[in-house]
Amino acid sequence: MNPSSVKPLTALYLIPVGLSDVELHMVLPQHNLLLVSHIKHFIVENVRSARRFLKKCDRNIDIDSITFFELNRHTPPQDIPSMLQPLQQGQPMGVISEAGCPAVADPGADVVAIAQQLQLKVIPLVGPSSILMGLMASGFNGQSFAFVGYLPIDAAKRTACLKEMEHRIVRDNQTQIFIETPYRNNTLVAEVCKVMPQHIKLCIATDITGPTQSIVTRGVKQWLNHLPNLNKVPTIFLLYK
Amino acid sequence: MNPSSVKPLTALYLIPVGLSDVELHMVLPQHNLLLVSHIKHFIVENVRSARRFLKKCDRNIDIDSITFFELNRHTPPQDIPSMLQPLQQGQPMGVISEAGCPAVADPGADVVAIAQQLQLKVIPLVGPSSILMGLMASGFNGQSFAFVGYLPIDAAKRTACLKEMEHRIVRDNQTQIFIETPYRNNTLVAEVCKVMPQHIKLCIATDITGPTQSIVTRGVKQWLNHLPNLNKVPTIFLLYK
Repeated sequence: MNPSSVKPLTALYLIPVGLSDVELHMVLPQHNLLLVSHIKHFIVENVRSARRFLKKCDRNIDIDSITFFELNRHTPPQDIPSMLQPLQQGQPMGVISEAGCPAVADPGADVVAIAQQLQLKVIPLVGPSSILMGLMASGFNGQSFAFVGYLPIDAAKRTACLKEMEHRIVRDNQTQIFIETPYRNNTLVAEVCKVMPQHIKLCIATDITGPTQSIVTRGVKQWLNHLPNLNKVPTIFLLYK
Repeated sequence: MNPSSVKPLTALYLIPVGLSDVELHMVLPQHNLLLVSHIKHFIVENVRSARRFLKKCDRNIDIDSITFFELNRHTPPQDIPSMLQPLQQGQPMGVISEAGCPAVADPGADVVAIAQQLQLKVIPLVGPSSILMGLMASGFNGQSFAFVGYLPIDAAKRTACLKEMEHRIVRDNQTQIFIETPYRNNTLVAEVCKVMPQHIKLCIATDITGPTQSIVTRGVKQWLNHLPNLNKVPTIFLLYK
């Protein structure tokens, strides 16, 4: 692929980054790496890590010529539309989040929604998603699945949420996918395995694409006898029957 | 990346293919392309297109030295476990479906489930997924979403299904994603736009990664006035508020 043949369109590119600290050629198409060198305006979750990512894509990139707009939970919503001005003026722009795919279980959806309202072109690029890769490797139903994000912290709400997931697995044949704040992973696994009936299976997917990757599906009662230590390990959980 | 440095583990690799007929470097990491040359046993949805894909990955691949097991809707379930014998004997294996990511809205989940039961290692590779890429570019909620596959054909069941989706959008803030047999796309869009209330938005994502890619989010009533012709065009539909 000839680098100079890669020319971005006037569009908002959604640019995935790695989930772990592996070589980019392991997890991103060459096209992405060549394309980013041609973009000068980025909306990013964190400027420091976005700079690091861009330098990893292209060692010779001129970082000082790039404009970054920071978009994360601290950004006032009214500040978002103006970030798209370069694109409205004909410049290609990129969105980069902290890990994985922008706008999926990550900030970025707000700015994409505004781009859609403004009838601007939006182009998603290929990259690693722990949700999708966990699902692929779980052996669970990939014809119907739901990602529900974080479970509620409140005990009663949490139990209700687990009941609802059980219901959707049994009644709708729908795989249920969720995450937890990493330091609470161990508590969550113990709870899920205790609460869920015997015929439910749990897939624990840790360090996806990383050197210690493990994606293992077992019955909840099997897990109970061999609870893994997931404290502070990035993990995605999947449930099915 | 040095081709000889890429050595597959004794694992079942889930190997995505392109969604459209673009150059592989556009949509797959270089790692995937190098890895497949080292695998001699594949479980595939269709042998002919799997051969074509492997040759596209590596022009010099020795196709005749490769064993293919076909796994699709015509495969008797009792034939699946024996396909994993090479892996049980220490050979790396690959799963390749017709388009996108194996085991997601595609065959393959059955053999992955058996591999998990047999406690074999399963490794998903990065590649394009119309579900994920449609979601990224829709601007819809990526913190909670469900893919429900094909809608029912029966009129009453279909209406009930659309009502249930509306419910989950409004009550659970959950993006709803679905597909249709391509020759019925036009009927579906007209129906969805008529049935859904005004505050619901529809994202129509066609030809993802292809030359005519278009991912556009509008209110259902806006679409009603400009119904696109999606007859036989591969499309994914997303609904949110």
